[in-house]
Amino acid sequence: MPEHHTLPEILAQVRDGTLSPTTAEQLIAGLPVDEVANLDLARTDRCGIPEVVLAEGKDTGSLIKIMHSYVRAAGRVIASRITPEQTAAVLAALPSGITADYREICRILILSDGTVPKSVGGTVAIVTAGTSDIRVAEEARAIAEEMGTAVLTAYDVGVAGIHRLFPALERLKEADIYIVCAGREGTLPSVVAGLVNKPVIGVPVSTGYGYMGHGEAALASMLQSCAAITVVNIDAGFTAGAVAARTAALIGGKK
Amino acid sequence: MPEHHTLPEILAQVRDGTLSPTTAEQLIAGLPVDEVANLDLARTDRCGIPEVVLAEGKDTGSLIKIMHSYVRAAGRVIASRITPEQTAAVLAALPSGITADYREICRILILSDGTVPKSVGGTVAIVTAGTSDIRVAEEARAIAEEMGTAVLTAYDVGVAGIHRLFPALERLKEADIYIVCAGREGTLPSVVAGLVNKPVIGVPVSTGYGYMGHGEAALASMLQSCAAITVVNIDAGFTAGAVAARTAALIGGKK
Amino acid sequence: MPEHHTLPEILAQVRDGTLSPTTAEQLIAGLPVDEVANLDLARTDRCGIPEVVLAEGKDTGSLIKIMHSYVRAAGRVIASRITPEQTAAVLAALPSGITADYREICRILILSDGTVPKSVGGTVAIVTAGTSDIRVAEEARAIAEEMGTAVLTAYDVGVAGIHRLFPALERLKEADIYIVCAGREGTLPSVVAGLVNKPVIGVPVSTGYGYMGHGEAALASMLQSCAAITVVNIDAGFTAGAVAARTAALIGGKK
Amino acid sequence: MPEHHTLPEILAQVRDGTLSPTTAEQLIAGLPVDEVANLDLARTDRCGIPEVVLAEGKDTGSLIKIMHSYVRAAGRVIASRITPEQTAAVLAALPSGITADYREICRILILSDGTVPKSVGGTVAIVTAGTSDIRVAEEARAIAEEMGTAVLTAYDVGVAGIHRLFPALERLKEADIYIVCAGREGTLPSVVAGLVNKPVIGVPVSTGYGYMGHGEAALASMLQSCAAITVVNIDAGFTAGAVAARTAALIGGKK
Amino acid sequence: MPEHHTLPEILAQVRDGTLSPTTAEQLIAGLPVDEVANLDLARTDRCGIPEVVLAEGKDTGSLIKIMHSYVRAAGRVIASRITPEQTAAVLAALPSGITADYREICRILILSDGTVPKSVGGTVAIVTAGTSDIRVAEEARAIAEEMGTAVLTAYDVGVAGIHRLFPALERLKEADIYIVCAGREGTLPSVVAGLVNKPVIGVPVSTGYGYMGHGEAALASMLQSCAAITVVNIDAGFTAGAVAARTAALIGGKK
Amino acid sequence: MPEHHTLPEILAQVRDGTLSPTTAEQLIAGLPVDEVANLDLARTDRCGIPEVVLAEGKDTGSLIKIMHSYVRAAGRVIASRITPEQTAAVLAALPSGITADYREICRILILSDGTVPKSVGGTVAIVTAGTSDIRVAEEARAIAEEMGTAVLTAYDVGVAGIHRLFPALERLKEADIYIVCAGREGTLPSVVAGLVNKPVIGVPVSTGYGYMGHGEAALASMLQSCAAITVVNIDAGFTAGAVAARTAALIGGKK
Amino acid sequence: MPEHHTLPEILAQVRDGTLSPTTAEQLIAGLPVDEVANLDLARTDRCGIPEVVLAEGKDTGSLIKIMHSYVRAAGRVIASRITPEQTAAVLAALPSGITADYREICRILILSDGTVPKSVGGTVAIVTAGTSDIRVAEEARAIAEEMGTAVLTAYDVGVAGIHRLFPALERLKEADIYIVCAGREGTLPSVVAGLVNKPVIGVPVSTGYGYMGHGEAALASMLQSCAAITVVNIDAGFTAGAVAARTAALIGGKK
Amino acid sequence: MPEHHTLPEILAQVRDGTLSPTTAEQLIAGLPVDEVANLDLARTDRCGIPEVVLAEGKDTGSLIKIMHSYVRAAGRVIASRITPEQTAAVLAALPSGITADYREICRILILSDGTVPKSVGGTVAIVTAGTSDIRVAEEARAIAEEMGTAVLTAYDVGVAGIHRLFPALERLKEADIYIVCAGREGTLPSVVAGLVNKPVIGVPVSTGYGYMGHGEAALASMLQSCAAITVVNIDAGFTAGAVAARTAALIGGKK
Repeated sequence: MPEHHTLPEILAQVRDGTLSPTTAEQLIAGLPVDEVANLDLARTDRCGIPEVVLAEGKDTGSLIKIMHSYVRAAGRVIASRITPEQTAAVLAALPSGITADYREICRILILSDGTVPKSVGGTVAIVTAGTSDIRVAEEARAIAEEMGTAVLTAYDVGVAGIHRLFPALERLKEADIYIVCAGREGTLPSVVAGLVNKPVIGVPVSTGYGYMGHGEAALASMLQSCAAITVVNIDAGFTAGAVAARTAALIGGKK
Repeated sequence: MPEHHTLPEILAQVRDGTLSPTTAEQLIAGLPVDEVANLDLARTDRCGIPEVVLAEGKDTGSLIKIMHSYVRAAGRVIASRITPEQTAAVLAALPSGITADYREICRILILSDGTVPKSVGGTVAIVTAGTSDIRVAEEARAIAEEMGTAVLTAYDVGVAGIHRLFPALERLKEADIYIVCAGREGTLPSVVAGLVNKPVIGVPVSTGYGYMGHGEAALASMLQSCAAITVVNIDAGFTAGAVAARTAALIGGKK
Repeated sequence: MPEHHTLPEILAQVRDGTLSPTTAEQLIAGLPVDEVANLDLARTDRCGIPEVVLAEGKDTGSLIKIMHSYVRAAGRVIASRITPEQTAAVLAALPSGITADYREICRILILSDGTVPKSVGGTVAIVTAGTSDIRVAEEARAIAEEMGTAVLTAYDVGVAGIHRLFPALERLKEADIYIVCAGREGTLPSVVAGLVNKPVIGVPVSTGYGYMGHGEAALASMLQSCAAITVVNIDAGFTAGAVAARTAALIGGKK
Repeated sequence: MPEHHTLPEILAQVRDGTLSPTTAEQLIAGLPVDEVANLDLARTDRCGIPEVVLAEGKDTGSLIKIMHSYVRAAGRVIASRITPEQTAAVLAALPSGITADYREICRILILSDGTVPKSVGGTVAIVTAGTSDIRVAEEARAIAEEMGTAVLTAYDVGVAGIHRLFPALERLKEADIYIVCAGREGTLPSVVAGLVNKPVIGVPVSTGYGYMGHGEAALASMLQSCAAITVVNIDAGFTAGAVAARTAALIGGKK
Repeated sequence: MPEHHTLPEILAQVRDGTLSPTTAEQLIAGLPVDEVANLDLARTDRCGIPEVVLAEGKDTGSLIKIMHSYVRAAGRVIASRITPEQTAAVLAALPSGITADYREICRILILSDGTVPKSVGGTVAIVTAGTSDIRVAEEARAIAEEMGTAVLTAYDVGVAGIHRLFPALERLKEADIYIVCAGREGTLPSVVAGLVNKPVIGVPVSTGYGYMGHGEAALASMLQSCAAITVVNIDAGFTAGAVAARTAALIGGKK
Repeated sequence: MPEHHTLPEILAQVRDGTLSPTTAEQLIAGLPVDEVANLDLARTDRCGIPEVVLAEGKDTGSLIKIMHSYVRAAGRVIASRITPEQTAAVLAALPSGITADYREICRILILSDGTVPKSVGGTVAIVTAGTSDIRVAEEARAIAEEMGTAVLTAYDVGVAGIHRLFPALERLKEADIYIVCAGREGTLPSVVAGLVNKPVIGVPVSTGYGYMGHGEAALASMLQSCAAITVVNIDAGFTAGAVAARTAALIGGKK
Repeated sequence: MPEHHTLPEILAQVRDGTLSPTTAEQLIAGLPVDEVANLDLARTDRCGIPEVVLAEGKDTGSLIKIMHSYVRAAGRVIASRITPEQTAAVLAALPSGITADYREICRILILSDGTVPKSVGGTVAIVTAGTSDIRVAEEARAIAEEMGTAVLTAYDVGVAGIHRLFPALERLKEADIYIVCAGREGTLPSVVAGLVNKPVIGVPVSTGYGYMGHGEAALASMLQSCAAITVVNIDAGFTAGAVAARTAALIGGKK
Repeated sequence: MPEHHTLPEILAQVRDGTLSPTTAEQLIAGLPVDEVANLDLARTDRCGIPEVVLAEGKDTGSLIKIMHSYVRAAGRVIASRITPEQTAAVLAALPSGITADYREICRILILSDGTVPKSVGGTVAIVTAGTSDIRVAEEARAIAEEMGTAVLTAYDVGVAGIHRLFPALERLKEADIYIVCAGREGTLPSVVAGLVNKPVIGVPVSTGYGYMGHGEAALASMLQSCAAITVVNIDAGFTAGAVAARTAALIGGKK
């Protein structure tokens, strides 16, 4: 979308006679609806949720084109659920001056022209029950860091060895919000919520087999939890990271 | 919402200097989003989908208040899924000059100040497999008639007695679109779609018991049908009636 | 089925004594049931729903045989859900004079002897929320075009960027009916239905993962929608295209 | 199990003093429970349900061993759900004098030492809605023929072309029982049951995609059917064939 | 439908010139489709499946009217899933000369003008696992007897006390087909099928609570059974009874 | 079943000539199958699982008759899931010399002629997460005590207040096996299993609402648990109590 | 639990010789585990999550006892999901000096001895799509206010009339966090999340009928949402209110 | 965790003045919570549940590292659900002095430095219905033997050939507890439970196809069973083995 006028600018031009009411009507119809409705779009810009490209299901050509156009526009772009094949293709087509950061464990690829995320303050803690949950936790970490918050992690501190949990929580105690990833029966978020006094987001992870396996028991368990937690979809590390980063910035951030 | 300015009016006033850009910005923010976005809201008015009040779950006081305010504004109001108790309460509080039309079988109550639906032309055919499907069919009929289309019905012509189906379809052959309501295995819409050359909307009805009872088998069967039909939710006579009436008006209507 | 007599012809021959009642009885038993029942089969022919061959699950030999026999009989044949392997086999066996149109994205292969679809008028608009929904949209487009309607498309205009939706709808405003394809939460059909005054068919697309992923949440959301839309099965681009083309021809078509 | 005494024999030996009560007690404990309970095990033998080996999930070594021991004992053995790899291995190890009959479409392999199934009379009709259902129908046919009944088939006569159904049923009219295989919405068994006056067994087939795909809608539809039919599990051609063959033998068979 | 001509009669009249081809065409279009298609409708009459009225969901007025018209036409009528209130209303409106047989346990009401079911021969055995399954078994018994077969029953012989099963089966051994009703884990039909050599129909009964309660585990268990049984829907005593009676008449009946 | 002979007795009589082989054959066919198969039925008697009458779904007359006949035969009888109405009827018909113990919370009614359960030793601990789980725990307690084990209970010690759990477990530490009842997310059994070194049986309780409410999340969570626990059906206090009592008797009992 | 020592106090006494190591060991074992593990329990106290009594499923006696003991200990107590009958019983037994606040719409009863919630600052916004969602919203409001935050509400501003949404959000713009309650297709939370830059918690509400009704479609839709929101269980107003109040206090509160 | 002090040691040092209360407080916070809470952790050690490494989903590097560190610490380590690729990698990196035992059928790999499991006494019986269930049974056997119990097995003795079951149970009669593995309809555990007087654990196995296939029908059937059994998740041989070994050790073991 080329040149972009704000509503006050348009109205000023109408008043000044440099824009006809008819043309103004057309321009207003083309504005983002939020702006028209007088909501402060600039605040959204400041909150810094980066555009994330869902690589899954995209053909390689489109993926490369989208990532290049985003990195050119914003300095950085993040692709999620990217396959090794897609990654190889993107890397092979990397424009000069752009560096790539591929995180295989969480299937994320970040391109950057040297721009780094602007710190917004706040700290997100990410906890996992087991080692199999780390891939989801790392997805949450990637997006939260991309949004400019600090991230602390404590992986593999699940309920089975609850004595590993207490020192871990002690170490994370400066966090403004907790993301807790757990598969199978998904108990850990509830336990953590009983031990800290900050918001806790539960992330069910698609481990476990048999009845209600693949994260479904974990999701059910978190939704039914007696503890006060909120939940995201199975394996939705991205959503958890984005919400947590935004909340952490509001609680502990610079503004 | 009191006085209401259109976007052209507002812009004209800015140009004329009778409205400041700042006030204009506020007024524009208060406009219906469709209008701002230059879509023809008037067309929606012409298509005549009436406001329908879902009575289920509403307390009696709110229900009466909402229905009275709608009938006053629009001349007619339709309440769906109304209980006998709610109906009695609404009737007891009926303002003078307002008449009520209660259709127990489909749990619909219509209030009117004498206004009748404006005919938009077009004809909707409504077919049911059994007698138990009639309550849903009648809900569809009520909304379609309220929207100004003609309605033809053929009830209880289900597959079990397919010889009853042929003369029924013959009788309905002027219809512009068909609504076919069926419970249990929900076969009838597919059969009808194989015999007519107009659009067919399948409505699963919550009859049947046991595995996938209560309309779920019918829904599944209609979604999996080899025939070209579209489907609405179980018992969603209202939605089927509204879509069919709008489509019939476009196919066979006066405009 | 060799020689084919209509019911009036048979009866005339009985009256004329050129056909015995017993032979007539046998011939009548062999007639298409619709014709016997006095329904206008010719109308179905005019509506032009082409025979579509579901390639999925067919062995290569049968597939080639069926497609050849259809293209010979009708001038064109369309195969859906065809694999690259099946396509290669069909192409390798292509009879002279037959051309093939393979659309990988929607897994459709069309064979033609030069015959083109006969225009029936009417316009179908196809909208997708994201890029992953295009494969289903293209299946709908293929069948609608095959049936002789015009098709307008607006892809990747999903709710996340609702400001992209308004100009898209403006561009599609001549359409007689809308097909809206969306995965994950499947919101777009409801939003579109609130902004246009033509019928809207929602097509859930099997994107999304975790709880109710693979299009199930989208299906549920569309069936529960407060907006007046009808729905087809997950990924059922073909059904949506066929219903929309037939309806568009009735609303805006030449006859 | 070596030498095998019947209960009367054991008791006679006790009476005659050639067997001690204690030894008799042990022998009785080792008898088949049915025999002990005085049920006529021989009847089961006469009904001729062959031992069927479920190949799926068995390692090759065990499969070969089991099939060889069965064919040696009974003259014939049938393996179901066998993979091409398993088949190759069994064929490679075929003992001399044993012939193999591999039916790829229904994944069945039959070994025989020349023994042929003993005719028990009766006729089973097998009908399929589409071509994709044939693999299940053929599994039913294999087991029914193995049990000694005649089998008539009419494939691909589904509801979409109901005019193909009537002559097919005419051709099958000598059947004692019908097996009707159908996927997607699974309507055909109900339709057939309305047109014949013999028992009908519905077999849902795992075709169809999306909501309740893979045969689930067909199963639901058959269980909810208004017609009087019984049902077997999705793709359970074997069970349908065995029940149908036994019933056909009772209705139309020689004994 | 008043006067009714058969196809041969119509054709003869055309030949004789007493009927014009055009009128003949109309009459043929009004014929039952089965007859037109040359299927022997009379066979269906001989098989004697009575019309059963599903009382559930019908208003009292319609129910009485339907039952009266059926009993007048056929001498007998059976209503299923009738409530005590509906029964009271029907009894209160009983025409003179009509007697009523109300079976509370299976919610069936039979009206008769003195006509009794015509015996067709054959014997159906009905077995239940527990006492809670009797209500479904009795529904099956009612319809089977109405269709003219003999019925033997053995109730409450479930697996828990398998020693009660053997003498029961001994007592039922003349049966031509078995209906076995069981709730909870639904094992009994498989066990019976292992002990008899006649067809077995499993009827899941909606007992049991918790996970897959209300008959769902029983349905699943019967569909997954290694034994050769067919299944009907949960609580579908009627369907089981009708299929069993028809099959028994074919196996053991007089014709 | 009157007079009852054991297999050795029968064989001895055959040997002695006081019983003919034919009569013996009949008697043997009437024996409990376990005994015939040489399994020690007497052990089952010693383990003392009482006959439990499931009152739910039984008519009052049958219930009274069954309970009276059991209490007469065994000295005690236990009815589960009994309604207040059924209880009132049973109490009204109480034979002289029989006392009743009605436990409303777990819907159990015990009749006794003065006989008390014979102690078999062993101790069962029953723990509940909340107060709503007590009704299920009490059902387990009733059956365990009826079977002659000691029962210790600790109710309402759920995870939310884990500091209440430690002293409770300390108090229960003599137990041979633990039954842990929990609804909603069902975490407690896993936690207890991590803290004790005796077998733990998880009992999901049908509390909780919304997604996977009514005990389904608890069941899923327990089945997916990383801890080594076994599980029974939702609300199946009876099954848990019976298994636990039997196991406790084996571990800690007198024999 | 009477007198309560902190860990430092106990250790000081050991050092001082006023407490033996053995007694100290026992006291330490009795401490809340959080405290032992050196987590600041006092912080939890300051965060002020009140004890909420789930009335559903509790007998009246227990409910009254629990509520009285809580109100005596804490000055206030809140009971959720209370029935009118339970409320009447609690009110009838109200101790002198205690006042009751019964909110029928959300089934909450609050007892107080005059104590009011201590303000912790922060503002929670609660939005509902329709009027049927208000009962859940009010539950959230009750707990949030009880925890000392300010609450702003905008009810019935659902997507159907999106023009009602913009002024509502404008009015709520001081909020620190948003709770958005919606049934049926549950779209509103995603829409709100696209328009504000604060955390949004989606609450599915159990309205809607048919397939995935009762809030299940709404839950699925929110979990699958492309927008960055977190979710609680269906109808879980309490959990949403507690999390939101805690977060709001952290973002906008006094400390 | 290096050096480890017990609570009594710490308190003694405080009393003796060799440890400050502050340092003591920190040490206590670091203790295993069980110990602090005065539970006998040593008992857990004695029960000998070995650490089992879930290989599924772990990358090869981590897997090797974890297994090496465990075998070094404990003398033995068991990995479950290991792939052939993972196994090859672990074997290639095998440290000297360590031997490997790979059991392909149950996907288990055991490493040992020569240490053998310490016998704890007790006997576990493992029974399978078919040959496909053996892979799960072998997983149970591996863990039970690793825990030091004796294991007896009887495979492929399913219900279809119940006469094979009796001698098998006779052979297993010394067992202290039974694990019964069964797929499809999952009947065998209930049957076994009716024939033995020891605890029975049912293990549903993911065989079977179609409706409720893959072990779901078996799970449902076992949970709904009238017999007194407990259940573990589908294919959860490990859990069954661990619980059974622990229980067997308590019933029949040396202590």
